[in-house]
Amino acid sequence: LLSSASAQTSLPTPPASAAPADDGQWSMPTKNFAGTRYSELSEINTENVRDLQVAFTFSTGVNKGQEAAPIVVGSTMYVLTPYPNILYALDLSQPGAPMKWQYNPKPASAAQGVACCDVVNRGPTYADGRVFFTTLDAHVVAVNAETGEEIWKTKLGDINKGETMTMAPLAAKGKVIVGISGGEYGVRGWIQALDANTGKSVWKAYNTGPDADVKIGSAFKPFYDSEKGKDLGVTTWPPDAWQQGGGTVWGFVTYDPDLNLIFYGPGNPGPWNPNQRPGDNKWTNGVFARDIDTGEALWFYQWNPHDLFDWDGINENILLDLDWKGQRRKVLVHPDRNGLLYVVDRTTGEVLSASFYHAVNAHQGVDLSTGRIKINQDKYPLQNKVVRDICPTAPGAKDWSPSAFSHKTGLLYIPHNNLCMDWESVEPNYIAGTPYVGAEVRMMPGPGGHMGEFSAWDIVAGKEVWTIKERFPAWGGTLATAGDLVFYGNMEGWFKAVHARTGEVLWQFKTDSGIIGQPTTYRGPDGRQYVAILSGVGGWSGAIVSNDLDPRDGTAAMGFVNAMRELKNVTTKGGTLYVFKLP
Amino acid sequence: LLSSASAQTSLPTPPASAAPADDGQWSMPTKNFAGTRYSELSEINTENVRDLQVAFTFSTGVNKGQEAAPIVVGSTMYVLTPYPNILYALDLSQPGAPMKWQYNPKPASAAQGVACCDVVNRGPTYADGRVFFTTLDAHVVAVNAETGEEIWKTKLGDINKGETMTMAPLAAKGKVIVGISGGEYGVRGWIQALDANTGKSVWKAYNTGPDADVKIGSAFKPFYDSEKGKDLGVTTWPPDAWQQGGGTVWGFVTYDPDLNLIFYGPGNPGPWNPNQRPGDNKWTNGVFARDIDTGEALWFYQWNPHDLFDWDGINENILLDLDWKGQRRKVLVHPDRNGLLYVVDRTTGEVLSASFYHAVNAHQGVDLSTGRIKINQDKYPLQNKVVRDICPTAPGAKDWSPSAFSHKTGLLYIPHNNLCMDWESVEPNYIAGTPYVGAEVRMMPGPGGHMGEFSAWDIVAGKEVWTIKERFPAWGGTLATAGDLVFYGNMEGWFKAVHARTGEVLWQFKTDSGIIGQPTTYRGPDGRQYVAILSGVGGWSGAIVSNDLDPRDGTAAMGFVNAMRELKNVTTKGGTLYVFKLP
Ligand SMILES: O=C(O)c1cc(C(=O)O)c2c(n1)C(=O)C(=O)c1cc(C(=O)O)[nH]c1-2
Ligand SMILES: O=C(O)c1cc(C(=O)O)c2c(n1)C(=O)C(=O)c1cc(C(=O)O)[nH]c1-2
Repeated sequence: LLSSASAQTSLPTPPASAAPADDGQWSMPTKNFAGTRYSELSEINTENVRDLQVAFTFSTGVNKGQEAAPIVVGSTMYVLTPYPNILYALDLSQPGAPMKWQYNPKPASAAQGVACCDVVNRGPTYADGRVFFTTLDAHVVAVNAETGEEIWKTKLGDINKGETMTMAPLAAKGKVIVGISGGEYGVRGWIQALDANTGKSVWKAYNTGPDADVKIGSAFKPFYDSEKGKDLGVTTWPPDAWQQGGGTVWGFVTYDPDLNLIFYGPGNPGPWNPNQRPGDNKWTNGVFARDIDTGEALWFYQWNPHDLFDWDGINENILLDLDWKGQRRKVLVHPDRNGLLYVVDRTTGEVLSASFYHAVNAHQGVDLSTGRIKINQDKYPLQNKVVRDICPTAPGAKDWSPSAFSHKTGLLYIPHNNLCMDWESVEPNYIAGTPYVGAEVRMMPGPGGHMGEFSAWDIVAGKEVWTIKERFPAWGGTLATAGDLVFYGNMEGWFKAVHARTGEVLWQFKTDSGIIGQPTTYRGPDGRQYVAILSGVGGWSGAIVSNDLDPRDGTAAMGFVNAMRELKNVTTKGGTLYVFKLP
Repeated sequence: LLSSASAQTSLPTPPASAAPADDGQWSMPTKNFAGTRYSELSEINTENVRDLQVAFTFSTGVNKGQEAAPIVVGSTMYVLTPYPNILYALDLSQPGAPMKWQYNPKPASAAQGVACCDVVNRGPTYADGRVFFTTLDAHVVAVNAETGEEIWKTKLGDINKGETMTMAPLAAKGKVIVGISGGEYGVRGWIQALDANTGKSVWKAYNTGPDADVKIGSAFKPFYDSEKGKDLGVTTWPPDAWQQGGGTVWGFVTYDPDLNLIFYGPGNPGPWNPNQRPGDNKWTNGVFARDIDTGEALWFYQWNPHDLFDWDGINENILLDLDWKGQRRKVLVHPDRNGLLYVVDRTTGEVLSASFYHAVNAHQGVDLSTGRIKINQDKYPLQNKVVRDICPTAPGAKDWSPSAFSHKTGLLYIPHNNLCMDWESVEPNYIAGTPYVGAEVRMMPGPGGHMGEFSAWDIVAGKEVWTIKERFPAWGGTLATAGDLVFYGNMEGWFKAVHARTGEVLWQFKTDSGIIGQPTTYRGPDGRQYVAILSGVGGWSGAIVSNDLDPRDGTAAMGFVNAMRELKNVTTKGGTLYVFKLP
């Protein structure tokens, strides 16, 4: 079933420095710096996965959206809960994996009031004997991985301004890279590197404002003309609008040790209503390449200049090397909210291809000569006019939920959404710490009636290999393994193992709540392969259940409730770790 | 390992009318009117139980103590959550048992403030196409079992007076038998029969006060002299004290269709401080036999006259017929909080035997000629004096957690506690709707350091056959099966299958939270045997976790926190249904 194009050339593969040989652990949510979420473990494979069974379970004690990846280092698993962000260490060497310790950062409860999309957290990460994570009240914590003792705790934001943190840090080269959330509160987004030993700031780069703040200097060499010029983070906005301009950072960060670069995407400009902010609104909704040591920007590319629909650029950038028109190219692969799968040269920011992984009607793709997306003017959200049937929606054809890449199949596995929306732009006022949105949205299922899909994608050929339709948005992450399996969960609570080449569902298990978490796999102290997932519905799409929202108000959860009413009849709130193994 | 005594005679057996042939369902928490919690299903047995695995799971969405028995009628399972007491119907005929409907009685949230022991509920019950259950705010509800539509909802108590409901109703003979909780709030206890069709009261009997209120009339023929006399519910109290005298009803009710009698135990007298209420404090802490149609009392026996230690008489009364000194006798079997296992003639109230199933130092057992318990005066809780090392504690050698009886082994399987306490009586004031206790208690592990045990008990021989020690109190229920297995869960979260004859743990699975629920088993629509349990720690013993109590305050949860501090390091809050089957 592999396309002949990719079968003839050698398959894409992550750079070895960013995806070293598998050690059977899973020490960071992305699995490796390249972000492939691929494990070389193959004890569980297409032949035997049908026998997979629950090995043990653990309650997070918090019935909110569980987005964290359970990580494993040595014989310890680390599980991070949504707010109040308690970190649990489980001893995998003992039957039933009893608790080793718990660490409670005691975040301010008022943080819950300014979190845009449930009180989620995307997980802890490990490096050099420490576990690092962010808290909803905008602190970053380092904890001794053995004892659970706090090593440092650094406050980086102010919840009174709507600043929160939900992302999983990237820990690399003695630094902890983190960013701020709050794009729906007019927070001015930034990314920051902390010293892993002390928690002190090493560098900080804003995503809006003057070049100096954005760490744009002489090294900055964007590929396209529209990213070139002085202080575009100021001049592509109405006066001062960049100060409440969003561009927050809450997705996964990848890292190329050879290039010494990190890659991440700033979120949407604020407010949503585009009529408030004529211009490209740099440096929102794009991807930055920055020097990991200094934070200096090397290049930037904007997926969605002058954002119309809350299309945060934060989705994953997976680092691969691949054959492109006869040349081996260092690329990053990025499935954007706008429905396009981008292949970008990660040394230059040149877009090699941008193919639709999901059909949309809001634009016609990218003009590769200019790098600019071609907007459909009839879907432009003019003020005080209800524009109907815009596809995709604000959360996009795909939200934060990360893909996985298998170099064995050469395929990218993408969880995505099939949603459309009605949108009315209205005029918002900026008041610090309150929502700054300016749009009334109602979402509904896209063509076909299903709201989610899980697809295998041939990156080089730029086409879908197989797809699985899901009743609800595919809001969780993905795991690919050398057993030719991909794992993902759906919002009904089914955790599935799929044949990586055919898309056949080989096994599925009904967890106790909808799944929006990130599956991981590891070799246990007993030498056996295990697969782990947190169940517990929530996040933006599942807030109707996790926050007990009234299904009668379709505009609740910024319009998501309109599409998700039925979720209340299908699943319940939860928060449980499931770990599976073969008998 | 069976004692030779019981092997020679025919084994005890529940009356056929109260425990009819197994239909593969589990329609009431007690399994049958006799309360044996025994199933004739034997597909899962001592040979194959090691292969048992999780079939599916379901989140109750509420992280409080899960005490309910999951019940099964036809191809539907009914799961009742703690407050807010949502009833879920799951379709067992579909993969993953999806939700059929949910019914939310919307109890008043203030009810949580007057619940003594977490916001638990012991489960729904089924009869004639209806599911019946109680709500924490003291309503009883009947719901159409097929559609989830409310048929009736009757308010029976007032939370402003501290009245709540937590018990599982008994549905029998067109009636729904329920009682009120609130012994720690000076609630005057009663039991009541509602018309199953209309929810209207058929009869109501108080457990304190004048004979007329107690439904003591000419039919009342107690066995012992101390239960004889006019208006003992008034005269065994200081003036008017019976009005706030407790004797609430929150345990399981059993029913003998041949005798037309129900059996249940009133709870402790209020307040705990015994110096406030000289006298026997009838009719608390005993067992009533009442006519199911009229509520008329036939007899009463008081396990603990003039209660010293909060020894509610509510523990299960299992109905058995057994050979006793050459005669077949109709008995009830009752493991009391005071550590004694009573065998009582259920036609007369005569105590045939009272043997220690757990060692205690607070009394020396029962004088069978008078029926009275022999108190150790040096453990008498005089006012303003700390009496140390009283064993057992206020929750008793065994709390509500029900035993199971297998007529195949002839053994009773008893979850119980090994706890001692320091007690200081203080003077309480009665203020409606506020705690009325008058004791400062601190509990600790009993001799040996373990806090729980799970034992097999030979009723006729009056002795233990085997026992399993548990680190924490054994706070969940028990299931016995014809597969020669007994199932129970512990507060660490392990769900265990034990060889019914030897006590060998043949299988165990780590659920996500501590277990205090009641296991059940059923034949699924596919003809296979399943075993179900709710996991989710809480109740009185687990309130430290479910209510986030401060472990530094040993007197919290009426002194239970002192013993349970470590539970916080061992388990987390939860609320998950687990259903197991063979591969
Ligand atoms: O602009 C922001 O700062 C911001 C933050 C977050 C977040 O931190 O969870 C989300 C979003 N935006 C967002 O646009 C979005 O779609 C989203 C989904 C989720 C989620 O967890 O399900 N979070 C967020
Ligand atoms: O006196 C009462 O009315 C009353 C009510 C309840 C209850 O309704 O749960 C308990 C008790 N007492 C009690 O004494 C007790 O040990 C107890 C344990 C539990 C539990 O669910 O773990 N409930 C209750």
